[in-house]
Amino acid sequence: MASGRMEFHADSIMQHANFSFVLPNDFIIEEIKNPKHYDRPAKSLILLHGLTGTDTDWLFGGVAQEMSKQYNLAVFMPTTGNSFYLDRGYEGGNFASFVGEELPDYIRDTFGYCLTREDTIIAGLSMGGFGAVHTALQFPDTFSACIALSSAFVIREVAELGKRKNSIMPEKMVRDVFGDPKTLLESDRNPEVLYRRRKAEGKEIPKIYLAIGREDSLYGVNQEFRHFLEEEQADFFYEDGPGIHSWDFWNEYRPRGLEWALSRG
Amino acid sequence: MASGRMEFHADSIMQHANFSFVLPNDFIIEEIKNPKHYDRPAKSLILLHGLTGTDTDWLFGGVAQEMSKQYNLAVFMPTTGNSFYLDRGYEGGNFASFVGEELPDYIRDTFGYCLTREDTIIAGLSMGGFGAVHTALQFPDTFSACIALSSAFVIREVAELGKRKNSIMPEKMVRDVFGDPKTLLESDRNPEVLYRRRKAEGKEIPKIYLAIGREDSLYGVNQEFRHFLEEEQADFFYEDGPGIHSWDFWNEYRPRGLEWALSRG
Amino acid sequence: MASGRMEFHADSIMQHANFSFVLPNDFIIEEIKNPKHYDRPAKSLILLHGLTGTDTDWLFGGVAQEMSKQYNLAVFMPTTGNSFYLDRGYEGGNFASFVGEELPDYIRDTFGYCLTREDTIIAGLSMGGFGAVHTALQFPDTFSACIALSSAFVIREVAELGKRKNSIMPEKMVRDVFGDPKTLLESDRNPEVLYRRRKAEGKEIPKIYLAIGREDSLYGVNQEFRHFLEEEQADFFYEDGPGIHSWDFWNEYRPRGLEWALSRG
Amino acid sequence: MASGRMEFHADSIMQHANFSFVLPNDFIIEEIKNPKHYDRPAKSLILLHGLTGTDTDWLFGGVAQEMSKQYNLAVFMPTTGNSFYLDRGYEGGNFASFVGEELPDYIRDTFGYCLTREDTIIAGLSMGGFGAVHTALQFPDTFSACIALSSAFVIREVAELGKRKNSIMPEKMVRDVFGDPKTLLESDRNPEVLYRRRKAEGKEIPKIYLAIGREDSLYGVNQEFRHFLEEEQADFFYEDGPGIHSWDFWNEYRPRGLEWALSRG
Repeated sequence: MASGRMEFHADSIMQHANFSFVLPNDFIIEEIKNPKHYDRPAKSLILLHGLTGTDTDWLFGGVAQEMSKQYNLAVFMPTTGNSFYLDRGYEGGNFASFVGEELPDYIRDTFGYCLTREDTIIAGLSMGGFGAVHTALQFPDTFSACIALSSAFVIREVAELGKRKNSIMPEKMVRDVFGDPKTLLESDRNPEVLYRRRKAEGKEIPKIYLAIGREDSLYGVNQEFRHFLEEEQADFFYEDGPGIHSWDFWNEYRPRGLEWALSRG
Repeated sequence: MASGRMEFHADSIMQHANFSFVLPNDFIIEEIKNPKHYDRPAKSLILLHGLTGTDTDWLFGGVAQEMSKQYNLAVFMPTTGNSFYLDRGYEGGNFASFVGEELPDYIRDTFGYCLTREDTIIAGLSMGGFGAVHTALQFPDTFSACIALSSAFVIREVAELGKRKNSIMPEKMVRDVFGDPKTLLESDRNPEVLYRRRKAEGKEIPKIYLAIGREDSLYGVNQEFRHFLEEEQADFFYEDGPGIHSWDFWNEYRPRGLEWALSRG
Repeated sequence: MASGRMEFHADSIMQHANFSFVLPNDFIIEEIKNPKHYDRPAKSLILLHGLTGTDTDWLFGGVAQEMSKQYNLAVFMPTTGNSFYLDRGYEGGNFASFVGEELPDYIRDTFGYCLTREDTIIAGLSMGGFGAVHTALQFPDTFSACIALSSAFVIREVAELGKRKNSIMPEKMVRDVFGDPKTLLESDRNPEVLYRRRKAEGKEIPKIYLAIGREDSLYGVNQEFRHFLEEEQADFFYEDGPGIHSWDFWNEYRPRGLEWALSRG
Repeated sequence: MASGRMEFHADSIMQHANFSFVLPNDFIIEEIKNPKHYDRPAKSLILLHGLTGTDTDWLFGGVAQEMSKQYNLAVFMPTTGNSFYLDRGYEGGNFASFVGEELPDYIRDTFGYCLTREDTIIAGLSMGGFGAVHTALQFPDTFSACIALSSAFVIREVAELGKRKNSIMPEKMVRDVFGDPKTLLESDRNPEVLYRRRKAEGKEIPKIYLAIGREDSLYGVNQEFRHFLEEEQADFFYEDGPGIHSWDFWNEYRPRGLEWALSRG
């Protein structure tokens, strides 16, 4: 199946950005089991990795290839280290702008995908689930939907740095990534702040799919974000089920998220 | 600089075809020393490796990146083993059709390059120099020009298999690649046959650039092909100079070939 | 997880050979669900793709990563086009020697794996299943076991070229790959010939694992080879089950084959 | 030539680390123009990119392949973004420890290179020139020599952040990378501090090669570091010549640095 990896110089992160991709354009459509998605041109999916992950995670542990083929999606997998896909506020550290703006622009110019908002979805797991929601809300004109699996909605935990125990990231790393904890809850790095701002602006807000395993340590923070969306009467879909923070869960809910997002397109 | 490697399933060779690429689309044009080539959209260059080579040869030993940047070229480097870029006459072994038809088609669909004949050049060194000329003549509607460095015009040598000594390829390999030596001179695998056919058809024939080192063991066969083109009054340019079969020679004549081909576009 | 792709110049196929690899050497052993395979140094697995496939097949559609991690295996995935992993009898076309001799030698020199026969297994699916059995029998000092999934034991079919219908490969391609059909059954390209020769030589013969889906069109030829091994009283294990020529089947029988081969080591 | 790219999970940077490599182990030694370096086993070279660069820079714009072949060097090119190859002081941000400790360890385990101090050299250009000197001094037991081309010795400039104009990096990025400017001059991030400490410890200090173009804007800071080394009576070699911050300069002084470092081994 058509796939590759490439790099280009991205101003927003002042680095050569690597990304992997899978394209649904080198096989016979008649061989697809479920060709219903081939009545339309391919849509695009930006797919985000988790903490300590990299762009090839979805290729190896996951099934970017199968997603591309079954759903007629051009899939693009950037790699941004442990940035939480957030802008640090200076050129060279703007990971949100990279994933939500510069990369889709580059894909549009280079491959002719990500042409319209309706054609473009963003998804991720864990840190990438947070990134998918946050990036979609920061760039609502780029994405029509986001799919957030087992998402690390850690803003409140980070805001209480020093009070709550942070299990994974060293404190100095947290400060590099999230900035000053004291002002974090009111900042653009909080997806809730972005959501309310988009609503106030009267913007069309990307649809949101959330899934979380009931045995996942991130179950609690996903309930918090779910309740926020309920209170805001957002256009979203939430589901949970048995499962921990693992590929077993992601492989089960990944197609469910895609079906929901594509049916709402 | 924007570069990558990808693969796709190619029917003509019934394999996943790997190719590398460099794209002139991620830098500030003002930084280019000689920006005259940026008054136009990027052109495309299919770039062929030599015997025992592979798609990354031009990246490592050569300078695909510099060619892309200086001349505003999207460069695509396929890899086809020791096929001499010839069709073997069955689906799964058609390397000419792969390089001259399926790959440009795929590039057009995927990247939006190779859009017109005027925009598309093919080049190569050694076996790839033969391949550049032969492929351009087999697909004159795809390519406007070809650049052939130190080309392995070995058709006559192969036709006399058993009479002349063949220094590099084992005899059975030669038969696999070129077919029956007895009928080779009159076959489509002979660039001269293709040239005469295109002329008889009244086709617009791709322009040809030839360069060869005077100390190269392929100097003689390049004189033969040069004389053929003179007799046919072809639109071509020939030059030679001191040099053997090495990157020193290719790096000197590569830009000369490009300048000539682009100025004639 | 540690993984990569590299190329080197291989004399046996006179080309730059690409291979992908996954190495079980960058994670905490305590995190492995089933650490029983970590009481020993890592073993090596050469893993072969099927017709029209490539070295990344096992990475994308399959689960080389999971095999490496669960079983403490360094996995190496060469790519050789549609060669059926057979020697064509001339340097530059010797794919069996490449996979069974030059590649393991290169891996030994470069990575320090494939050190002993007991440490080295070869596996494959479809054309690669045939290749795994054939290569193990051609190089019994290199491999202690082979795992052959849904194998294309097509020697008899090819020998009757023109009589039986060959569904996939064009006739001329078959001749390029297998040589003269008239002498094929008695040649080294027939795994049965190799098996009998190794037995006559008193060689230790690699153990063989065979699995085939009952709905696979290759079911019949797998029965033929199974009966041959029974008559020879070979050290082998055969099993079948519901299934066609697909990753569903391969993912089910892949670990079964590995468990069997490793338990017999 | 043998080359590839791989990734592994590196604890020191809490990410999957990508690196490219070229290995001098797949060609006939008799074909080397200058085989004097083949009387010994291959040495290892860790090769660092500059600001905004990536691991493939030395492959594309430079000549890792030629360095490997001519000098019998296994060349490893990590990629670490704009880290200046410095430890940030928390696991997940320790780029010096990654390049100077975890990567050589991983290479030793995986490839059997970087076996001894005498066998291991570190080199780089611009930010990577700074990184080569700094890393060698932080890990003097790992490296016997470092080669620093057009090095960004920017410690003093950074320490005066706000007073001197910083032309390339945004201020907040500088603080992320270098920490508090007020304490920088006395910190481990200053190569001079490391040099004096190693001397006080009676350690064997890696030999240092410095080269800088006279028209390079970094010429002045290279003079400062040169004078420091003179005062310390260090074992180093300095040279300059016409040139700016470009591959023309690096390609000229790269082999000179290697010749010096290897002759002093």
